[in-house]
Order: sequence, then C-alpha cells, then structure tokens
Amino acid sequence: MATNKQIILASRPAGVACLENFQLTHEALQPLKQGQFRVQHQYLSLDPYMRGRMNDGKSYAEPQPLGQVMIGGTVGCVVESLNPDFSVGESVVGMGGWQEYCDVDALQASAWRKVAAQHIDISHYLGVLGMPGVTAWYGLNKIIQAKPGETVTVSAASGAVGSVVGALAKAKGCHVVGIAGGPVKCEYVVQKLGFDACVDYKQHNSMLSLSKALKQFCPNGIDGHFENVGGMVLDAVMLRTNPFARIAVCGMIAGYDGAALTMANPALILVNRLMLQGFIVSEHLSDWPAALAELTRHFIENKWRPSQSIAVGLESAPKAFLGLLKGENLGKQLVKLT
Amino acid sequence: MATNKQIILASRPAGVACLENFQLTHEALQPLKQGQFRVQHQYLSLDPYMRGRMNDGKSYAEPQPLGQVMIGGTVGCVVESLNPDFSVGESVVGMGGWQEYCDVDALQASAWRKVAAQHIDISHYLGVLGMPGVTAWYGLNKIIQAKPGETVTVSAASGAVGSVVGALAKAKGCHVVGIAGGPVKCEYVVQKLGFDACVDYKQHNSMLSLSKALKQFCPNGIDGHFENVGGMVLDAVMLRTNPFARIAVCGMIAGYDGAALTMANPALILVNRLMLQGFIVSEHLSDWPAALAELTRHFIENKWRPSQSIAVGLESAPKAFLGLLKGENLGKQLVKLT
Repeated sequence: MATNKQIILASRPAGVACLENFQLTHEALQPLKQGQFRVQHQYLSLDPYMRGRMNDGKSYAEPQPLGQVMIGGTVGCVVESLNPDFSVGESVVGMGGWQEYCDVDALQASAWRKVAAQHIDISHYLGVLGMPGVTAWYGLNKIIQAKPGETVTVSAASGAVGSVVGALAKAKGCHVVGIAGGPVKCEYVVQKLGFDACVDYKQHNSMLSLSKALKQFCPNGIDGHFENVGGMVLDAVMLRTNPFARIAVCGMIAGYDGAALTMANPALILVNRLMLQGFIVSEHLSDWPAALAELTRHFIENKWRPSQSIAVGLESAPKAFLGLLKGENLGKQLVKLT
Repeated sequence: MATNKQIILASRPAGVACLENFQLTHEALQPLKQGQFRVQHQYLSLDPYMRGRMNDGKSYAEPQPLGQVMIGGTVGCVVESLNPDFSVGESVVGMGGWQEYCDVDALQASAWRKVAAQHIDISHYLGVLGMPGVTAWYGLNKIIQAKPGETVTVSAASGAVGSVVGALAKAKGCHVVGIAGGPVKCEYVVQKLGFDACVDYKQHNSMLSLSKALKQFCPNGIDGHFENVGGMVLDAVMLRTNPFARIAVCGMIAGYDGAALTMANPALILVNRLMLQGFIVSEHLSDWPAALAELTRHFIENKWRPSQSIAVGLESAPKAFLGLLKGENLGKQLVKLT
C-alpha cells in the first residue's frame, strides 16, 4: 500500500518558531470508505496565519493540535472516489493540510471547491484566485471601501495578499503606495505590480522616520490602509491618515513571535475619526463568488500574474514556512508536491 | 453701558492644565448691529473635549485661539434682537462660550436652536437633551449598534455622556456594565442610573486586574463598548471582547495631559475581529433630530434625570473645569450664570 508523507506539529514555539517544531511522518494510505474521495496534492499553500495557530493562546481559530497534520490550503487532483459528486481526474481546492494526500469524508466534501485547470495554472487557486485574493478583495471593498482618487497604502505589499490589494486598488483608480522590506521587493511592487510607489521599511528605525517617508509618497494623506504587519508600520501609517480613514486589519505578523506589539497613538482613532476593523475572510463566505468573479476577470483580461515563490517537496515546507515569516519569499509562497 | 464678563485662554498648558491658563476679562457690551441678537447665558456647559482644544497640536478641531473667549455650549434667553427670527424672551442653545452674554451674527444664527423651557429645566439641553445625549445616542446606535441581550460597557459611566449611554442601552434590553472612579460614582451608576453593575477602576492598578473585575460582571463577554477615557480602561475592556465586538471611541481623556497613551494589545483587533471607530457628534448633524426625539421621549415618559454638578458664577468655571478633568464632578458639569 502507498504511503502518505505528512508534516505534523511536534511542539509549540517558545518565541520564534523553528524547524524542531515540525516533524515528518509517514502514514499508510487506507482503502476509502463510502462517500470519501482522495486528493493527491499538487501544491500546498503557506500563509502567515499558520504561525498564529501554532501558539496555544486564545486566537480567532482553535490552536493547531499537537501531533496532528499541519493545517493548510491545498490544490490537487481527485485520484480515487467513492463520492458521486467528485470524479477521478477533477481538480479541487480545499484545506488538505501539509501532506501528500488527503482523504475527504462526505461531510467535509462541501468545503472543497472544483476548479478549472485547463487554461489556468492550478497554483493560482492558492493565490490571486483563492483565499489570499479574496482576502484582498474583502478588505479593500468591504472595509476600506476605496474610492477613485483616494490614497491607499498596503503593508507586506509584495506578499500574496498585499499584491492583490494594490492591483485591485489601482484598477479602482486609487493612488497606491506599498510598504515592503528591502529594495528587491520594493522594485517588484512598483515595476511589476504597478503600485505608484513603495516604501522600504527596513530603511527606517522609528515610526517617525517611516512616517516621513510615507508623507513623501502620500502627499494628500492616507484614506485607506490594508494592514498585514502591525507594530511600527501601523503606527507610522496612522500618523498620516486623513479624517475618516479606514484601516482593514488582516494580519499582525509582527507580533506572532511574542514580541511586544503595542499601538503608539490610539488617540488618533478619535482625532482622525478612524475606523479600524479586523477580519478573517473565511467568515464571509457569501462574498466569495463576487470576489472570485472579479479576480478571475482581472486574471484573464488583465493578465494579473503576481510572483510566486515555490519550494519543492513536502520536506521543504517547514523551512519555506519559516522563511515566509522572515519575509524571505517574493509573492505567494507555495510548496510543489507533484 | 453694561459689561460682559468673559474667560479667555491666557496660555496653553504645559502638561496638566491649571488655573493660570485662564483669565477673567470684562468687555463693554456694544449696541447690536442689524441681524444680530443677544443671548444672556443661564448655563455654561463644561466638557472634556475643551481640554484637547487648549493644546496647540493637531486634533480634530482647530486649537482654541489664545486671548479669545473659551469655546463652549450654552443655554440662555434672548434679551435683545435685531433678527426677525429670534424674539426677546425665547430660550436658545448654542456655542456661546465662557461669557455672560453672546452677540450672535445673522450668519451664525442657524447654529442656534430654540428650545422649550416651560416644562423642561433649560439646563438639560446641555446634557441629556443636548450634545452629550446625542453623542451617547450616536455611538450606541450608529457604531456599537447594540442589540437586546448583548453586553455593553461604558467608561466614565457617571458622566454626562456615559450615563445616557447606559440608560439607552438598558432601554434596549442590554446587559450594561459601567466603569467609573470611586465608590460614590459606582453606587450612583447602579442605584440611580440603573446599570447592572459598575467597576471602580481606581481599585485596580493594572490592565489585567481591571480585566478580571470586568469578567466577573460580564460573564458572557463584551459585545459593545463606549470609550470615553482610553488607556488602561480600554486595554482591559479589549481583553474581554467577544468576536465582532464594536467599540465607539468618543473620548481619550486619559491622554489629554500629554501622558503616554498606548494600546497594549492591538492584535486583539484581529484576533477578535473588532471594529473601533472614532467619532465627533457635530459631524453627524443629520442624526440629531432622531436622537433628540428619542431622548426627549425618555426624558418625559421615563423621567430620565441624570445628575448634574453645578458651579455658580462665571468665575468658578476654570476651577470646575479642572475638577471635571480630575473626575471630581458627578454627572453633567454645568456653570450657572444667572
């Protein structure tokens, strides 16, 4: 019988996550039960939210259980099926986890979505045409509600979510300024993604210095901000907000390793009559169809192809994930499994 | 010719505001020009926002100019008029400032509202039937959007705004818990205002201690919060928020004297998918009629009579104002001028 390679959470991080928190295991594949189907994964998605789930503390999702396969989005192909709704050969996207195969029970089948893989590289269903893309769409349209001519800023601008936020905002006629780490990412954000400008936060060691740089590229102030990072970046942005600015809080990656993460000037919420809202895209499923329709249209008509960083082989997932947390990737971080 | 006593801003506070920042002056009343009317003030309203305007820094309103009459809401009676829309003997409410008389130009007349003073003590138009009442109504209805059965918390619960927030939330069928300073205020909030409970923040020297006290009285967590204070109080409340809680940010009085005012755990905005929104009620004039109608109904039918602290004579205004900033008042702080 074939085996299924898996990566489990072996221990919780004490501070910074490390390779020892993960463990590679092998499981024998069992015969399917009635109603099940088996997906062979082609790509595994690596996303910052996974770091939050490795902790035991209260968060928006249950902690990742110790000793179990790491949770994660996957795309793949149905290779066996005892479920009449899923046929061998169909391409699907779901939360298959850090493993080569996923056996899906009948009760979980509705959480998997069939996707067209003839004309679209299937990997994009984990990026611009998947959860990161819809996350960008939701924050920009439902929280920031960006209008033409407004200035929108995005942190982690070169990442899977940030790149789509910027592209959508540009398509709306906004002035879009990214924030990213290092000259390579900043050049990518401007040259390839088409942002109006990008500020390298690594060139700044204080909120005030970063804020001054933002002022240069946002001469009319900031009307909307999409936050993936938190900490000094959010503090600097808040100093440049216009009255009635909206801030979508999608990620606080700066605080995932337990570093103190305060907000320097919460009084600005009152002074500038700001609206800040945190969100998790999986809680807004009714918006996915409209979001995916718009994203697919841009993907086809405007040939949106944000960069991907692809690690190869399940064994490479932990190292690639730790690199993602340190910002070593450019664009969507994937693991190619077949 | 009669004189008009006035209090001007003599200097800006360096840190904590003090009596020396104010100066009493006398101005000779001049004959009215065409279109003007003269109001003799009966009550002057003292409100925390005035402290923010004494600073020179960026805020939501222009700083109070040095050497000019302190801004402030007033109620009074028209005693002379060359304006056909305002007749001698009518009662009016407006922003007349810290002075005995206010001469209103034709162009400013629309900012004054006529009020009925036959059956309602005119002082209430500076409290529950005025700006503080509408502030409470707007935050609770438009931002918190409190629903029956939800738990709502309010800081500065015994104050002019907080007391109305609680009363409105109770009328909606919410579980309402106040936060106030000292046993007298807490007892007032529960016994007279009808809150379900009130936590004395002065009994707690840390966010975690205050948070634990809140947990005791909010066993189902916090769904909505009306913030008048900021700092440790807001931090403690955020730790007890339920998913999708809404926080209306109306005041950050804890930071008015320049003390560092950070937010301890902004990551909770994401973890609990919070919405925080700052607002200023004067920017939402279209909501005032509905708010005042509901407040007037409660005032008449349910006999809402939040407490007032009344200082007598214009000379007493600076001291009463500094006391307000230190929380020495109970309920709406007024200065009685006639």
